[in-house]
Amino acid sequence: MANSSLATQSQVETTTFDELESNVQSYARSFPVVFNTAEGAYLFDENGNRYIDFLAGAGSLNYGHNNAHLRSRLIEYISNCGITHSLDMHTTAKEAFLTTFNDNILAPRGLEYVVQFTGPTGTNAVEAALKLARNIKQRHNIIAFTNGFHGVSIGAMAATGNSHHRGAAGLPLTGVTHMPFCNYFGDELDTIAYLERMLDDPSSGIDHPAAAIVETVQGEGGLNVATPRWLRALERVCRKHDMLLIVDDIQAGCGRTGTFFSFEPSGIKPDIVTLSKSLSGYGIPFAVTIFRPDLDCWKPGEHNGTFRGNNHAFVTATAALERYWGNRDFETEIADKARLIGDALAAIAKDYPDDVIAPRGRGIMQGLTCHSGRLARDIVRRCFRAGLVIETSGSEDEVVKCLPPLVTPNDTLNAALDILGESTRAAIAAYKPD
Amino acid sequence: MANSSLATQSQVETTTFDELESNVQSYARSFPVVFNTAEGAYLFDENGNRYIDFLAGAGSLNYGHNNAHLRSRLIEYISNCGITHSLDMHTTAKEAFLTTFNDNILAPRGLEYVVQFTGPTGTNAVEAALKLARNIKQRHNIIAFTNGFHGVSIGAMAATGNSHHRGAAGLPLTGVTHMPFCNYFGDELDTIAYLERMLDDPSSGIDHPAAAIVETVQGEGGLNVATPRWLRALERVCRKHDMLLIVDDIQAGCGRTGTFFSFEPSGIKPDIVTLSKSLSGYGIPFAVTIFRPDLDCWKPGEHNGTFRGNNHAFVTATAALERYWGNRDFETEIADKARLIGDALAAIAKDYPDDVIAPRGRGIMQGLTCHSGRLARDIVRRCFRAGLVIETSGSEDEVVKCLPPLVTPNDTLNAALDILGESTRAAIAAYKPD
Amino acid sequence: MANSSLATQSQVETTTFDELESNVQSYARSFPVVFNTAEGAYLFDENGNRYIDFLAGAGSLNYGHNNAHLRSRLIEYISNCGITHSLDMHTTAKEAFLTTFNDNILAPRGLEYVVQFTGPTGTNAVEAALKLARNIKQRHNIIAFTNGFHGVSIGAMAATGNSHHRGAAGLPLTGVTHMPFCNYFGDELDTIAYLERMLDDPSSGIDHPAAAIVETVQGEGGLNVATPRWLRALERVCRKHDMLLIVDDIQAGCGRTGTFFSFEPSGIKPDIVTLSKSLSGYGIPFAVTIFRPDLDCWKPGEHNGTFRGNNHAFVTATAALERYWGNRDFETEIADKARLIGDALAAIAKDYPDDVIAPRGRGIMQGLTCHSGRLARDIVRRCFRAGLVIETSGSEDEVVKCLPPLVTPNDTLNAALDILGESTRAAIAAYKPD
Amino acid sequence: MANSSLATQSQVETTTFDELESNVQSYARSFPVVFNTAEGAYLFDENGNRYIDFLAGAGSLNYGHNNAHLRSRLIEYISNCGITHSLDMHTTAKEAFLTTFNDNILAPRGLEYVVQFTGPTGTNAVEAALKLARNIKQRHNIIAFTNGFHGVSIGAMAATGNSHHRGAAGLPLTGVTHMPFCNYFGDELDTIAYLERMLDDPSSGIDHPAAAIVETVQGEGGLNVATPRWLRALERVCRKHDMLLIVDDIQAGCGRTGTFFSFEPSGIKPDIVTLSKSLSGYGIPFAVTIFRPDLDCWKPGEHNGTFRGNNHAFVTATAALERYWGNRDFETEIADKARLIGDALAAIAKDYPDDVIAPRGRGIMQGLTCHSGRLARDIVRRCFRAGLVIETSGSEDEVVKCLPPLVTPNDTLNAALDILGESTRAAIAAYKPD
Repeated sequence: MANSSLATQSQVETTTFDELESNVQSYARSFPVVFNTAEGAYLFDENGNRYIDFLAGAGSLNYGHNNAHLRSRLIEYISNCGITHSLDMHTTAKEAFLTTFNDNILAPRGLEYVVQFTGPTGTNAVEAALKLARNIKQRHNIIAFTNGFHGVSIGAMAATGNSHHRGAAGLPLTGVTHMPFCNYFGDELDTIAYLERMLDDPSSGIDHPAAAIVETVQGEGGLNVATPRWLRALERVCRKHDMLLIVDDIQAGCGRTGTFFSFEPSGIKPDIVTLSKSLSGYGIPFAVTIFRPDLDCWKPGEHNGTFRGNNHAFVTATAALERYWGNRDFETEIADKARLIGDALAAIAKDYPDDVIAPRGRGIMQGLTCHSGRLARDIVRRCFRAGLVIETSGSEDEVVKCLPPLVTPNDTLNAALDILGESTRAAIAAYKPD
Repeated sequence: MANSSLATQSQVETTTFDELESNVQSYARSFPVVFNTAEGAYLFDENGNRYIDFLAGAGSLNYGHNNAHLRSRLIEYISNCGITHSLDMHTTAKEAFLTTFNDNILAPRGLEYVVQFTGPTGTNAVEAALKLARNIKQRHNIIAFTNGFHGVSIGAMAATGNSHHRGAAGLPLTGVTHMPFCNYFGDELDTIAYLERMLDDPSSGIDHPAAAIVETVQGEGGLNVATPRWLRALERVCRKHDMLLIVDDIQAGCGRTGTFFSFEPSGIKPDIVTLSKSLSGYGIPFAVTIFRPDLDCWKPGEHNGTFRGNNHAFVTATAALERYWGNRDFETEIADKARLIGDALAAIAKDYPDDVIAPRGRGIMQGLTCHSGRLARDIVRRCFRAGLVIETSGSEDEVVKCLPPLVTPNDTLNAALDILGESTRAAIAAYKPD
Repeated sequence: MANSSLATQSQVETTTFDELESNVQSYARSFPVVFNTAEGAYLFDENGNRYIDFLAGAGSLNYGHNNAHLRSRLIEYISNCGITHSLDMHTTAKEAFLTTFNDNILAPRGLEYVVQFTGPTGTNAVEAALKLARNIKQRHNIIAFTNGFHGVSIGAMAATGNSHHRGAAGLPLTGVTHMPFCNYFGDELDTIAYLERMLDDPSSGIDHPAAAIVETVQGEGGLNVATPRWLRALERVCRKHDMLLIVDDIQAGCGRTGTFFSFEPSGIKPDIVTLSKSLSGYGIPFAVTIFRPDLDCWKPGEHNGTFRGNNHAFVTATAALERYWGNRDFETEIADKARLIGDALAAIAKDYPDDVIAPRGRGIMQGLTCHSGRLARDIVRRCFRAGLVIETSGSEDEVVKCLPPLVTPNDTLNAALDILGESTRAAIAAYKPD
Repeated sequence: MANSSLATQSQVETTTFDELESNVQSYARSFPVVFNTAEGAYLFDENGNRYIDFLAGAGSLNYGHNNAHLRSRLIEYISNCGITHSLDMHTTAKEAFLTTFNDNILAPRGLEYVVQFTGPTGTNAVEAALKLARNIKQRHNIIAFTNGFHGVSIGAMAATGNSHHRGAAGLPLTGVTHMPFCNYFGDELDTIAYLERMLDDPSSGIDHPAAAIVETVQGEGGLNVATPRWLRALERVCRKHDMLLIVDDIQAGCGRTGTFFSFEPSGIKPDIVTLSKSLSGYGIPFAVTIFRPDLDCWKPGEHNGTFRGNNHAFVTATAALERYWGNRDFETEIADKARLIGDALAAIAKDYPDDVIAPRGRGIMQGLTCHSGRLARDIVRRCFRAGLVIETSGSEDEVVKCLPPLVTPNDTLNAALDILGESTRAAIAAYKPD
């Protein structure tokens, strides 16, 4: 397991990174070791130290690191010289993915969508979604929500709330109006009623939007959960005002909240959905934008990108869909683990006032919101020293976010939650509010 | 080899794609078969038909499909549970890449750059480059060039000339002034002198730019070549006007034009360079933005992205750098093949007037500019029927573009060029100008 | 007085306008006669019909049409060949205006401002204010409020809420975030607390604003009144977030609400104030942007305009300041008339439920908010037939707006309010809600 | 006449302006006296010093200061309580203007236009023109030209080339592509052929424009003259590419170049024309945007403004049109005076190399382009000391611009040109190039 000499080691070991990599690196600062191998819920550094991974590629490793089932399929594909890079040409691997995605995901849920293979990053899927919506409706404005995170390319970043990222744009971000998310202003304000008032009023200054884009649980934004009722109200407002509803399911989708799509419990039917992160299932870059067939107004190649035919991802994604989504068992497993995590977080928090520490989130996307970013950062620092990789989120980094692989065994979950509990108590004990 | 019943087959075989994939697909329309495996310069469809690949992932497969040297390293890495997805954390695989990139590429060329791992797509690397330039100079304007292609996310697309892509933006693209590329207006206009006049004149309406972004050979734009002299003049204007010089080497870099960086023959020293496409060497998504260390003003995580730590790409990229770029032999090989291709294209063109068909390009990024897009499209259609995958580029699709893997054996090159020659002659014979 | 044959007459008389003037004309449609002369609160058409003017140049004629005191000074100035047009050069007339404005307005109110003579339109004064704020703070974002109206040139229109005007922009309006005005969402929402929450939250998506621009009473927006308490809270938020506070006093200023500046009762000290409309006092184009001397970061001529030295306006403005603002008597008069109007409106409304008709406004900027724009338009139509020129405002044209000259004698006010009362009752009687 | 003690006097006299007026003042710095009265081509300061006015309100006083014919009509109108301010309602004075404008200007020239009364400033007329063009064509891009000046409100400023003004915008100016004006790049470049190449090329990066906006003689830009042939070529390109042609005739129109519209000699028929400056004839704020009736797609009030019904301006404008434009005599007079001025400037310049001083311009919009802004500013400084008010223009202030009233008697012109000649010779003698 990790030990206290890590800091010293890293000063020696990270010279290459210090000299040759840009200052833009960020997670590397929280975890100043050099990782080497990984399996399931575990990371191993180059000295063989083992860490439990409660970050999981920021939600990209729902099936764990190097999932054996997927790995064997990937190795087999590569060994057989399966085509790796195919632009947007037809391939056997893509066909298998499309068929499996339709059979195991779309059809059972009564969803009829076509699939656009965008460049294999979440931000690219969002760019495609926003373009499509604007072109269909011939309007430039998009509604996004406070604390939403949708990527950092200029089009997607306009919909991202975070000023740290926005400030780097270098030019004003346009085409998006930011509205309050569910419960943003506490009980005082029905935020959908407010949105509706602004849209109903022809002199509000809000240009008629082409669409609204929303995360049902805001991952980077601090595990803020949209209630099913709020989502349904949002869908109603979109219909009333002839706006498309886009769900950005890049972090919350692929089972993270308990169902394949995070919006399933609410019963809404988004017009456009973006998926990425855990879609390939193996941490391999992959992203799609899916939408109602009647919205498919793209002309050939209008939105393109070199790596939109990443067959390794098709292979592992297909394997994951077959392995985990052929029936509803996996959803039951996730629900059980989500309960385990929720109970543990509640137990940690129960000894403290709500404004010091409180549980937050949904599914296996839960955490602890802390009195301050300083407190949260101290907790994760202590966790790492005890062998747990975990990160903060939220506009002030004030939320400790548990994002383990969905397949993490219960004993590993418990071990990690123990570390989190101890670290939290120690951090609170040492904490002096400003 | 391919046969004439392909069209019929595809009608049956592509049903899945027709039903489940968006209309945005583009190359799939030119090559209506389902590809399955690939090796070196060859593609194989699901019926076992073989095609020579003169498209090579739009320049992403410089070392050929599933290059054996890289493949074994990748399989070994995966088999050993090497970490696949690592966000921007330090990993052994990343360290090896950084060291090899520095030792085999940067240091021997006297270039001192730091490496930013952006999201693994070219457009993301461009977004990062433009942001960085704007932030360093605190100015919003960027000079881009006619027929330039830099991606289709909103920030990068503003610098892209193509109206087919721009038209899909859904909102005005801002922050970029488009200036004429080398030889854009024939002999009449010294386009750098024109640019300089516009920048010198405080009332030209061109806001003082933060940077200029340029491809030394415009791949998508139609194989337009910037002369070394023009590039040096551009560099001089950038220095004079306190602008950064960004070379987008996504398509022309990684050896495509004969040297690792396409700008080497010109002697210029760009401030920022973007690389992607063939950087991983295996068709795996990968992109970096590299720049002078003193420009590294990024704050931690300011520009981020889930897949910026794609270790499979680090592994294959390192293997490619070791295999091909440890000495100058590969450059000699490329030069020889470039000559072979150039001679063949000249031979094809010599029987026709320049305005019907004429050679174009540099290195292994050459082709034939045709009287019209219609003629060029007919040539590539005939090529495909004869078993050669090749595409057009240029603002009117009027340039047939030869982008074979750099490692294609000479006899395969000759076979392909024979097909191209025959197809060209047949297409011209059948061609009736409007 | 006006008679019922007006409609018929106008069909003959307005041929010239129909043929030679653009469809953009708007008030002319409500009042289809040809006006010829005017004096005090009266308009006369070319047939000698007399109308009471409760529109008063949309608030530009606070001292009445062709005010005799001002007229004699203007004629004298013109007769003596006083310079008419002087760009921004020093003139005797400008000097007199500056001195009088300082002595009679600024100094007695403890306000220290410098005066920028912008182009002589309100929208130009707003453009100057927004530029100045953005340049001082080096930020692009500006907070404006729902239902605000600040002009229709592109810079000012971005801050205007009305979609009828915004829709004509022809390109997206940028650089402004629209926030809810005082009482915008009823009792449910403390709109300043909401604004503060959005500004405090670094991930709200609201870029740090350079300034907020606000009308204390929204004239075009429907006579919405900002309470003194709300204005003070807004000022506090601006100070806390290092934002400038701009009061657009173009319609509400120059005595319209009872004090020279509309914000005086609230005790706030805006950083920048725009004035126009009644500033010349004679209906002559004139506008200024005034601001704290330490904010005067303009370089010579940075914001210019041909008619920023309109000496006729300087002359009449000086005369008005001398005649009406040398002491506090005029403020008392306005208060008396405001009470008269308020009482009359209350009397009209008292027989109807609040959602049919209700009083609204402050000072001599009061009116009746109606159940619908259709009802309001019927009221003003009936008023015109009875000899009263009056207009609607509000996002649905649902507010009948009384904007008589401040100097209108009480008996004229009473006569007009009688017409308004009768017309209202008749319109309500004839009204069938949808 | 002016004397050498002016500087001293001004230090005393301008205290009021120093203390109470913003630093944005610009002409006041060149002419540090306080002007009081004016008549014809003469200005008088408060000490009775007389100056010949070769600035003439930057072209707003084509008929001289306080033209007696217009003055009597204006005084008569005011004395009779003619309505002063009428929003966009019909008035007798407006009807007279419309009729006279049609009878004396449009009809004789075979032009069929409708008149939009915009806010009474040039920049507002330009804003209206750009909006209209964008709405008609449903495209955001506009072509403007290097060194063009169209105003400083955000919409118009985007089309203005001058970086001094653009730099004050506070946010990026969008929606305009700046192209080279006639002879911008000397003989080397046919600038219309270049524009056409950019528009023909679907990958130039120039979005399909809604319109081009052009001055036939660039007043602020340095008296750059578009040749009739160039204008016709521009018109042809606009027709070919379905773009509207807007002539901004604000400075060059109303007779300044010898004909009422500056474009008459070229034979082009613009779709939209903006007029302001000398349109009222008396220096009173007035502006119109006129366009083909079939382009009149405005909805009522879409573009509005408080002072769009400035009846004083209607009265003086009508008087000017009657007095000067009832027949072609005035055009002959202007031509004679233009010749006188041209000959005098040629005589001044003939003793010096072209790069020291050279004549420039057309009609009574001529001047001397100097080796540098420093030389030009020294010339105008010396002129002012000798009693001549004259200014520079051009991107480096390098052009001394003669803009006397068109009605200036020949002996006054000669006296002024003598001062200019002497000042020029003295300035050149004292000039040391950098």
